[in-house]
Amino acid sequence: MSRQKLRIIPLGGLGEIGKNMMAIEFANDIIIIDAGLMFPEEDMLGVDLVIPDISYLLERREKLRGIIITHGHEDHIGALPYILPQLNLPVYGTKLTQGLISIKLKEHRWEKKATLRTIQPGVKFSLGNFKIEPFSVCHSIPDSLGFSIDTPIGTVIHSGDFKIDYTPVDGKPTELAKLAQLGTQGVLLLLADSTYAELPGYTPSETVVGEALGRIIAEAPGRVIITTFSSLISRIQQVIDAAAKHNRQVFVIGRSMRDTVHMASELGYLKAPPDVLRRFEEIHRFPYDKVVLLTTGSQGEPTSALVRIANRDNSQVRIIPGDTVIMSATPVPGNEALVNRTIDNLFRQGAHVIYEKLAQVHVHGHGSQEELKLLLNLVKPKFFAPIHGEYRHLSLHARLAKSLGIPETNIFVLENGNILELDREKGKIVGRLPAGNVYVDGLVMGDLASVILRDRKLLSRDGIVVVIVAIDKKDKARIVGRPDIVSRGFVDMKEGETILEQGRDLVKAALDRSGGRPLEWSFINAKVKDTLSKFFYEQTRRRPMILTTAVEV
Amino acid sequence: MSRQKLRIIPLGGLGEIGKNMMAIEFANDIIIIDAGLMFPEEDMLGVDLVIPDISYLLERREKLRGIIITHGHEDHIGALPYILPQLNLPVYGTKLTQGLISIKLKEHRWEKKATLRTIQPGVKFSLGNFKIEPFSVCHSIPDSLGFSIDTPIGTVIHSGDFKIDYTPVDGKPTELAKLAQLGTQGVLLLLADSTYAELPGYTPSETVVGEALGRIIAEAPGRVIITTFSSLISRIQQVIDAAAKHNRQVFVIGRSMRDTVHMASELGYLKAPPDVLRRFEEIHRFPYDKVVLLTTGSQGEPTSALVRIANRDNSQVRIIPGDTVIMSATPVPGNEALVNRTIDNLFRQGAHVIYEKLAQVHVHGHGSQEELKLLLNLVKPKFFAPIHGEYRHLSLHARLAKSLGIPETNIFVLENGNILELDREKGKIVGRLPAGNVYVDGLVMGDLASVILRDRKLLSRDGIVVVIVAIDKKDKARIVGRPDIVSRGFVDMKEGETILEQGRDLVKAALDRSGGRPLEWSFINAKVKDTLSKFFYEQTRRRPMILTTAVEV
Repeated sequence: MSRQKLRIIPLGGLGEIGKNMMAIEFANDIIIIDAGLMFPEEDMLGVDLVIPDISYLLERREKLRGIIITHGHEDHIGALPYILPQLNLPVYGTKLTQGLISIKLKEHRWEKKATLRTIQPGVKFSLGNFKIEPFSVCHSIPDSLGFSIDTPIGTVIHSGDFKIDYTPVDGKPTELAKLAQLGTQGVLLLLADSTYAELPGYTPSETVVGEALGRIIAEAPGRVIITTFSSLISRIQQVIDAAAKHNRQVFVIGRSMRDTVHMASELGYLKAPPDVLRRFEEIHRFPYDKVVLLTTGSQGEPTSALVRIANRDNSQVRIIPGDTVIMSATPVPGNEALVNRTIDNLFRQGAHVIYEKLAQVHVHGHGSQEELKLLLNLVKPKFFAPIHGEYRHLSLHARLAKSLGIPETNIFVLENGNILELDREKGKIVGRLPAGNVYVDGLVMGDLASVILRDRKLLSRDGIVVVIVAIDKKDKARIVGRPDIVSRGFVDMKEGETILEQGRDLVKAALDRSGGRPLEWSFINAKVKDTLSKFFYEQTRRRPMILTTAVEV
Repeated sequence: MSRQKLRIIPLGGLGEIGKNMMAIEFANDIIIIDAGLMFPEEDMLGVDLVIPDISYLLERREKLRGIIITHGHEDHIGALPYILPQLNLPVYGTKLTQGLISIKLKEHRWEKKATLRTIQPGVKFSLGNFKIEPFSVCHSIPDSLGFSIDTPIGTVIHSGDFKIDYTPVDGKPTELAKLAQLGTQGVLLLLADSTYAELPGYTPSETVVGEALGRIIAEAPGRVIITTFSSLISRIQQVIDAAAKHNRQVFVIGRSMRDTVHMASELGYLKAPPDVLRRFEEIHRFPYDKVVLLTTGSQGEPTSALVRIANRDNSQVRIIPGDTVIMSATPVPGNEALVNRTIDNLFRQGAHVIYEKLAQVHVHGHGSQEELKLLLNLVKPKFFAPIHGEYRHLSLHARLAKSLGIPETNIFVLENGNILELDREKGKIVGRLPAGNVYVDGLVMGDLASVILRDRKLLSRDGIVVVIVAIDKKDKARIVGRPDIVSRGFVDMKEGETILEQGRDLVKAALDRSGGRPLEWSFINAKVKDTLSKFFYEQTRRRPMILTTAVEV
């Protein structure tokens, strides 16, 4: 048994490595850690979501033992509604994580078919040959876990997303003593979060934000409108606490914020003093300086409550001078422009806006370099593989590990789809899965053919020109009349009319020179493309997509 | 005369306010400050450039006296090739600025038709009723200016893009004494750079970067590859100095970097000790630890030398382990993903990459809050209008000014196209120009109809479906055969075939129910759209653009 090797595979085709899903395999058992989704990159036009490619798992169905979840963020649970219908496995997570998974599954009507098992820090459970002990870690959502996984050849520690916060809002710090104890017993492999491997020093405690919020609320002359991620339950707790301290009432707007506040209060993860959390309808009973509004929209989402407010497009709330808006979040990469536009519009409406650059109204949920070193130092793993981050973050994390004395040959910087094989003595990347991206676009899920994405990109650049050529049914060498041309996204109707008209004449002339041979579609297609591409480029320096069809008349 | 009012107009339809162009008007004279371009925002699909809308100026041709340029960056000079053919005005700028303008105009073959006049700090000149005295300011390009403009009702100061650097690389600090003297004499209006109004404290001196570069070069085991903006001539000077100090040779790759180094050396803005700057062909004569490579690609531009190197696609340079790459620039907003991808790929090739988050290898060219306060304090203007920045930056700059005691009624937060009118006593925003964006897309320049952009956006999301309906020439109520359907960017050829085939049948059935009335195009169009939109959405949750054409056969 022990001569068999342990396989570690970060799944997914792009993005942060091992973030959305990892597989750990030994002999006849595979466990899956997390099942999250990614939002599409800029060039994935029209794609809604990207989820990990699970073909490796589908080919090994009989080995699969379960999915263990580190925490309830979208990038760790969001793919479950798409994956569970294919792999009906039990899902293990803490109470809050399961609450969030249930909301997701309900939306996809898969709630009743899923098997959700609640786990707790310190309570071991077995999946096949693996013995798993969850431990608490601090992250930007309560009830986050790391895992210590006993395998037949040694212990693997997976950090989850973590930071080291000695004064967390939920009172559950990262379990350093447990990690030290595991380190003393000997750890084969550490898989650790690299998201903030770029940042020197320590990430500040979440309570720093509470202090900043308190100061701003105390000094605000009127209403305070606060937006954050709805999953940031500790942040919501701090908003409630700061409001209560300064005798303000909290009103919640935005569907996802209301849902989360409701669920987290029910499960006991949010605690409000009596009468602080109020129904929105009561807001008119309170003077402006007694009001805190908690809202969605921290990412500048166009349909969110805050963006509607910024655009004077919300029927319930209008900005009035004296309002203070706090953006208690960082823009997720790609959302910067939306967030900046929202801030600009709030200023235009007369609000004073406070965001991360102006005051410490947000802290990260991931450890900085000194925290990563502390973890490495406590766990003292034989092998180390940085995960959760782009390639540069993993490289920098690997450098840190090397500087702490882990030999370079025992450090593995993986890519998604890489297969790392370990025995007790050494490790090696033995292969790479042909892991494409699995795109979710509308109802279709799968390998969205790259030709579709390429076409969408072409279309978005200079539009499309459609040419319809009518061929004489009897004399197939003859075209009837002038070809029709319609275009979209290429030229202005007015300015472009002449160009399109000239194009029709050119196509006609080009096809008339066929020399009496029957006009075949491939010939027509090539001629039309040649003629028009050249002409349009000369006239406009644009290269629209040209689509030709022939009809017999 | 003095009862007339002074008009201040930031021109341009979007982006930073007053950044690309401003107009100052009094009685029969208008002067223009800067003529720059913007790169398109994310949703301006296919647009190459955006330039200010000059219709206000075109309607007042007889008043125009000249264009004065603060410095040679694209966003201050880049629109000249598009604007000079419409407004043939003399252009005033420093020697280096004129050098950069000449390069631009040469590309557009307008060099010989333009009138370029060289100006110097401290040397006054007149344009109509305006007496202009340029003064030196520090920015991320040498030879940058601010302007003191005497008007019949008082002095206007325009800061240009500036920071306060007591140890600038080119030895020309911002002229604080001059500003203090102007302030003592009395300033009517200050127009000042707000780009970094968000940042507390002082922006570090450019020499800080030189020290960081020196340390990295001293410790690098092999080659050092440095990328920066090619306009950042002080940075290039510091690279040369640091290389010389550590006995390394400098080799330049990338066309725009070579052009700038050549031009700036000719004009005396770059100084290299003998034999430090070398022709690339000689690189093989030097050991790795004697080499510094200076390259383009700091913004991850896909065709730049550095990006090709990162992709193993450059015939001259390959990354080898031991290489150190320094990204001596910040990503311009919108370029973050490209820059990050480049860094990831360089790490993949085995280089060690050092970027802004890891060491102080870049500093900004704009003043932070304490510098802005210093300027306000020296100039003591009666009126203040923050410029150069998004609305939030201007709002924050206005707040700073208020905190220094300028009355709120004397502070004007403008938008592009706003007309600010001032007399000696008071000011007011009296109107807003209907300033649309002027898009440059290929050869076409003008108000790129929003319908084109909307179409490109629609096309990029779910592609297009083209439907060709054949109508019987004799019986116009009858359609011939099944309609043809072609699509691009909508569904996969294979998976989509059934859907498209079913679509044809549905269209046929829908049109057959016309009830014997002649089929008009508008009827066909509406029917086809209704039928297919609904069907495709049900089947795929996608909403392709649907384009219908009818032919008679």
